Amino acid sequence: MPNITVELLRGRSIEQRRAFARAVADSAVEILGARRQDVRMVFTEITPDIVANGGVLASEDESRAGVVAALDGSD
Amino acid sequence: MPNITVELLRGRSIEQRRAFARAVADSAVEILGARRQDVRMVFTEITPDIVANGGVLASEDESRAGVVAALDGSD
Amino acid sequence: MPNITVELLRGRSIEQRRAFARAVADSAVEILGARRQDVRMVFTEITPDIVANGGVLASEDESRAGVVAALDGSD
Amino acid sequence: MPNITVELLRGRSIEQRRAFARAVADSAVEILGARRQDVRMVFTEITPDIVANGGVLASEDESRAGVVAALDGSD
Amino acid sequence: MPNITVELLRGRSIEQRRAFARAVADSAVEILGARRQDVRMVFTEITPDIVANGGVLASEDESRAGVVAALDGSD
Amino acid sequence: MPNITVELLRGRSIEQRRAFARAVADSAVEILGARRQDVRMVFTEITPDIVANGGVLASEDESRAGVVAALDGSD
Repeated sequence: MPNITVELLRGRSIEQRRAFARAVADSAVEILGARRQDVRMVFTEITPDIVANGGVLASEDESRAGVVAALDGSD
Repeated sequence: MPNITVELLRGRSIEQRRAFARAVADSAVEILGARRQDVRMVFTEITPDIVANGGVLASEDESRAGVVAALDGSD
Repeated sequence: MPNITVELLRGRSIEQRRAFARAVADSAVEILGARRQDVRMVFTEITPDIVANGGVLASEDESRAGVVAALDGSD
Repeated sequence: MPNITVELLRGRSIEQRRAFARAVADSAVEILGARRQDVRMVFTEITPDIVANGGVLASEDESRAGVVAALDGSD
Repeated sequence: MPNITVELLRGRSIEQRRAFARAVADSAVEILGARRQDVRMVFTEITPDIVANGGVLASEDESRAGVVAALDGSD
Repeated sequence: MPNITVELLRGRSIEQRRAFARAVADSAVEILGARRQDVRMVFTEITPDIVANGGVLASEDESRAGVVAALDGSD
């Protein structure tokens, strides 16, 4: 431990996952005092049609259209 | 918050997810006093070959064959 | 299924949990076509010092002070 | 209950999932005193590019190359 | 991995958790081919007032009174 | 999103949780391109008697005694 799960919208590249995993492991070692080998992270990719905010699916949410569009096709 | 996750057997349509997300957000606002914009829901679709009840995979469970069959091909 | 988890800030009463569980089960039956006996819900109560939004613990987040205060002592 | 989730690296066969689900249900009945019909298990398959140990993605982790390779193509 | 979570009703003893953890690890090694040191299990204890089946809290569910009562005071 | 959960052994101080939440939010913004206000983190504290590695509860695992002892009483 720590055992970390990261739900994020689909569209990040493997370079982003690699860099994020390393940065969070660094923070866990420095701030939480964890042993590096004990830091575990699992990413779960979410598509906009299976997440809803305020009762509205992200794929149909105009207020989030910018966020969703920015990620499309980037991986 | 509330932050809500919904595991369900694959086969529901996007119309069903949309209506369910809205209904649950309504209930969260009315009953729990949540702010609508704070209600978050993520669906996880489960296939019958990765869930087991009583030690039997749902895809091989005759007592659940009706449930599984009813959902097949509906999305 | 559906198997539903609900993370929410501590402070809701058992009457609220009872009514919310019933309302969501009703929605699952009506909208998702679930069998009532298959609808399962688990609540996880979160305290403001273990959740962070935008990198700020909710217990130290002035923009959320109203939400947190409104729940204090209600159960 | 018990409600059991099993994250595992992709590559196990359905025979392995079937046998594991049955063995764990047996243990839950014998050791925990659960009713067999109440034992629920969901498998989540993880690919090596979405899990990191010690800040390193498993797909790029030489110390885990043996584990990952052993599972490839087995299902 | 496997990374296993076990939600169970409060009331099991540490002897039961110890024996169950060992039995499941044995099954993971024998059936899934996992390395023993990679098998991780976390228990989450659930109280009957935070879980609902069919829209009814377990603490108020007469059909489950026997299960709940059997666990009370056993730890 | 990202929606991040962090399971960690009990014993970290609120200062550590505060600093870790901020550092991870910084990394999510810089590396993943997330909007800061969309980064959510929930900590779950685990006690050594509910987690097992290799089938052995951490509270009874001599190979982890140092890690567990180092955290005791620090919060």
